[in-house]
Parts: sequence; structure tokens; C-alpha cells
Amino acid sequence: MEIARPYLLFLGDVPDALAAKTALGIVDWRPDWCLGQLRLPGCKADAKIPEMSVTDAVAAGVKTMVVGVVNAGGVLPDHWITTIVEALDAGLDVATGLHVRLATIPAIAEAAARSGRKLHDVRHTHERFATGKGTKRPGLRLLTVGTDCSVGKKYTALALEKEMRARGLDADFRATGQTGVFISGRGAAIDAVVADFISGAVEWIAPAADPGHWDVIEGQGSLFHPSFAGVSLGLLHGAQPDAFVVCHEPTRTKMRGVQHALPSIREVIDMTLACGRLTNPAIRPIGIAINTEHLDEAEARRVCEEAAAFHDLPASDPVRFGVGPIVDRLLAAFPKG
Amino acid sequence: MEIARPYLLFLGDVPDALAAKTALGIVDWRPDWCLGQLRLPGCKADAKIPEMSVTDAVAAGVKTMVVGVVNAGGVLPDHWITTIVEALDAGLDVATGLHVRLATIPAIAEAAARSGRKLHDVRHTHERFATGKGTKRPGLRLLTVGTDCSVGKKYTALALEKEMRARGLDADFRATGQTGVFISGRGAAIDAVVADFISGAVEWIAPAADPGHWDVIEGQGSLFHPSFAGVSLGLLHGAQPDAFVVCHEPTRTKMRGVQHALPSIREVIDMTLACGRLTNPAIRPIGIAINTEHLDEAEARRVCEEAAAFHDLPASDPVRFGVGPIVDRLLAAFPKG
Repeated sequence: MEIARPYLLFLGDVPDALAAKTALGIVDWRPDWCLGQLRLPGCKADAKIPEMSVTDAVAAGVKTMVVGVVNAGGVLPDHWITTIVEALDAGLDVATGLHVRLATIPAIAEAAARSGRKLHDVRHTHERFATGKGTKRPGLRLLTVGTDCSVGKKYTALALEKEMRARGLDADFRATGQTGVFISGRGAAIDAVVADFISGAVEWIAPAADPGHWDVIEGQGSLFHPSFAGVSLGLLHGAQPDAFVVCHEPTRTKMRGVQHALPSIREVIDMTLACGRLTNPAIRPIGIAINTEHLDEAEARRVCEEAAAFHDLPASDPVRFGVGPIVDRLLAAFPKG
Repeated sequence: MEIARPYLLFLGDVPDALAAKTALGIVDWRPDWCLGQLRLPGCKADAKIPEMSVTDAVAAGVKTMVVGVVNAGGVLPDHWITTIVEALDAGLDVATGLHVRLATIPAIAEAAARSGRKLHDVRHTHERFATGKGTKRPGLRLLTVGTDCSVGKKYTALALEKEMRARGLDADFRATGQTGVFISGRGAAIDAVVADFISGAVEWIAPAADPGHWDVIEGQGSLFHPSFAGVSLGLLHGAQPDAFVVCHEPTRTKMRGVQHALPSIREVIDMTLACGRLTNPAIRPIGIAINTEHLDEAEARRVCEEAAAFHDLPASDPVRFGVGPIVDRLLAAFPKG
């Protein structure tokens, strides 16, 4: 899937920043591709790039409007459709990571047909996958796992890729979600794959590679999330990681969208080891990534230091303090990587 | 998905009984729903029910022709299409568990349109599911889990439903695979659901019920199968079972389709408890179903007795010895069920 650049980011009128994490992720990792944002009245998210109308965007050279938001159930609200039709009629392609396919909405399908523009449903892959085989393949793999959804698994994987490359390692971010696909230009939204093919799809996303090559695979959900744990387990089995990093948000009291309490980092390490050994008996934890955005600097340092001491693993906030200590440990554990 | 009854079973001209196992399973468990079979010249499978033409079937009151076979190569042979069109034109609905969707075959789509009859593709669900919530709902639930695929999880669930009803319990088999959907007249092929909605689909399949009602839910795959464990985990979380039965085939050395050894019954119990507690902290094992078809009678008894003693659970072959001891234990553990 090739998405024409640069992008206009459509944020709709989402109620919080978390609902716009796709757009915010793209602008964080590919700022040069994002010329502006289009927000509707009442929007509570802000990508902190110039506000742009569709007309402004076309004048600035934008090629694709990215609907960079998620919403409950993945349904496209009726009042967003008007702006999407406007963008198509103005000559922009439109790309989304929503569950609903753009072409199933008649007004959008008609606008795309009359303007000759492309509709990209990043969440829907047209790739045909085999079922997973679980056999060990060459190359090294790191997977980010989580105590919940939306705790920084993609961010951590991207930060690790950047730091590993800076240290001279041969490393590639592997996308398993729609934002990751927008950022990397390849991959598949693993939660949209038919259930029988979850692990097989991951075997395709992170294929056999040179012995010293690292795939840094974006995790999804949590083995402890009652809505999505099946996705997380199939992803773990398909990734067959040599190393994993646990991602955590220490101020969250309930898992996203449900009434369940967060598991501890220890529980996630133990369950990841217990399940992950099926396809890689040598799987091991290599670090902890803590999202400290809701803590002050001193508290953030204290939380990371405590987690590091308690688990005997490097612990850091990838945004605030970087992932250097985790890559140090990775290099020590895999000296030939 | 609700399939109108009674059924005419279409067996085509399949080369052996294995290719007709869907039809044979329906007639085993729901003989009253199956008024006849329609076989083409050369058919090597036999459901041992009356032979019927489409015309005979309509006269007998049949509502749906079930294409209860799998075909080599995934293509629907032309001479099957003729019979399906004949059935639609005669006023029957048509249901299949084939990979190919009936409506993608023009002659069938046209016949359905002109007759106003329904096409059911049991392998492809059109139901829109919510994501799973994982909150406890009223009613009691039993799930069959396995050390592998194809070890008797559906058969065990159906045998339990039959025995529980014979003991006066209010129990319903809940289908999660295509054959099961034909047998229950409702349900969804869970391995065909989009990954994000596995547990949500199971919450729909086994909804809130009276406090004393038992759902007996058909398991899929195994938490230890590297191809399908994600499906099994989402199914476990959505089912939130109060009780589970472990199904096992003691002569199998490798898991179906892969190179991995089978887990032990103990490992499956421990992993099911560890994962299942997320949505039902009171989950407990209630019995072991051992498929002894490859053992002689004395060996079969010895294997069941050893498993029962080792795990302190009733162990039986549902086909050979029945599920009585497992239902005894269930009644003792849930006296108000």
C-alpha cells in the first residue's frame, strides 16, 4: 500500500488526545510529511501543526487527507463524511485506519468516483495470509508488549528502532497497527486480520532475515485485556521474539474501555514468558518502558528507578528519558546482534 | 445467524465420508431436523437417512438445503451449482460451510434473487459484533478446551448438552464452528471473525441467561497451538466459563499441522486457569474428555483411570464411555445449576 505524501491530518471532533493517537503518532515520527491539521468545532485533540482547510491544503501541495482518529466501534460519524467528500472533490486522496471501509459509504464512494481519487483503508489488508507455523526463523526479533492498550508500545518500538540504528544495528520497525502502517509505509493492521490468521500475518510482517538483523515489532493490546488478548497472543506467537519490552502507564487504574484493573508489570512478564516460550524457548524480557506523561520529573525518575530495581531490568520513559538503557541491555544480552 | 429447519442434506459426489463430516455431524446430533439426503452419482458418503430429490424435500416440508460437504480445491463444481439453483427455485434456502461465498456465483445469486430465498455462508459471518467487555453476565457457562485442534471439543460439548438435559438441567450447546452452527441453528464460526472481535463475538454467542441456565460452549484450537492460540484465548475470555473440560487425544505426538509437541493436560489446565481468571475468577476444571479411538478397550480404560487419578477429575471418553462422570462432578460442584 502506497499512500501519497504529504498529508493533511483530519482530527474530526474527537473528545480527547487518545482518540487522535494515529494523527499524533504520524506527526511525531514523520513531521516533514504532515503539512497541517483539520479540526471540527469541539475537537479536543491538537497535533500542534498549522490549521488548514481543505482548500489551503491543496494549495500547499497536500496529496492525502489522513483521517487520523479512532472512535468507539470504528464507525465513521455522519458529520465527518461532509469533510471527506470535500477533500475528495478538491483532489485529495483519503486514508483511514477505521474499521468501516470508506467505499461502503455511498457519498464517499461517489465522490471518489467522480474525482478519480484513491481511498485507502489501512485497517483492511488485501494481503492473503497463511496460518502461522510457529517454526523458528532466522533473524532477531524484539516485541513491545503492554499492561494495557495505548500505553506506548508503538512509540517504544519506534524509539528503539531509532536508537538501535544510531548504535549501528541493522534494525527495522515492523508495523502491526494502522498508525504504524502510515509511519512505516508497510505492515498490516493485525487486529483487522481474520482470527485464524493472526500469527500467520505476523510471520509475514516479520519474515526470515539475516542472523544479525533486528525486527522491532509493534505490540498490540495486552494479554490481560479482555477485549483484545487473543490478538496479543497470536501476535506474540507469530513474532517469536528473542527479547521483549514491557510498556506501562503507572497512573492508569482501569484497562482502556473495560472495568478491569491493570495487571502488574510482573504479571505481564510472567505471562509473556509462559506463552512466548511456545514459539521461542529463549524469549526474555529486556526492559521496561514507562509512560510518565502524567507525572512530574522527580516522580517519573522515581517510578523508573523503582521498576528497574524491582525487576532487575532497565526502565525508562522513551519520550522523556530515551531508550538508551534498554538498548545498552540489549547489546549486552545479544552481543552479536 | 438463524437457519430455518428442517434440513435436506446435500452430499454432492464427495469421494469419502471425511469430506461429508459436516453433514454426518448434523445427522448424528439433530436427526429430527434432517429429513433426507441428496446424493449425486458417484457419492461415497452416506448419512443413512432417506434419499430425497429437491421436489420430494419441498413436499416433505424441508426449509433449507444444507451443503454439508467440503470440496477439493475450494471451487464449487458446476454440477453442484445446478442442484443448488434447483433448490432455490423450488423455494428452499441454501446454507454452506464452504470457503466460497454462494452469492459470488452468478447463477446462484440470480436464483436467490428471483426466488427470494436466503443464502447462508456459515463460514462467513455477516453479524456485526461489538468488542468484548469481559464483564460477568448472569447464567452458567462450560467451555471445552483442548491439548490440540480436532481432539473432540465439539463432540464433548454436544455429549454434555445431551447428558445435562437428560438430568433435567437447562442446557444449550453454543456453536463456535461451522458444523456446530448447523447443529445448533445459531452461532458463528469464531475463527472467521475479525481478530478485534473474537471475545465480543463469543459474548454474543453465549449471552446473559437465567442464573441456573448452562451454556455448553464449543471450544476451538488450543492455547498451545502456535497457529490458533489467539482464537482460543479470545474464546476463553468471551466465554468466561465457570467450568471447563479438557479434551485430549493421547496417541497424538505432534499438534495438528505444525511441528510442536502436544502440551500435557496439566499444562492446559494451568494455562486455562491463569488466563481464564481474567473474566471469571471462579473458573475451575470439571473433567477430562479423552478421545480413545486409537486404543483398545482395556487401554482406553487404563488411560482414563490414570488421568482421573493424576488430576483428581473425572476422565472419560465421551464416545466410548459417555460423559456421565463429568456431569456428576458438575452437579456436585454447582448444586443449584
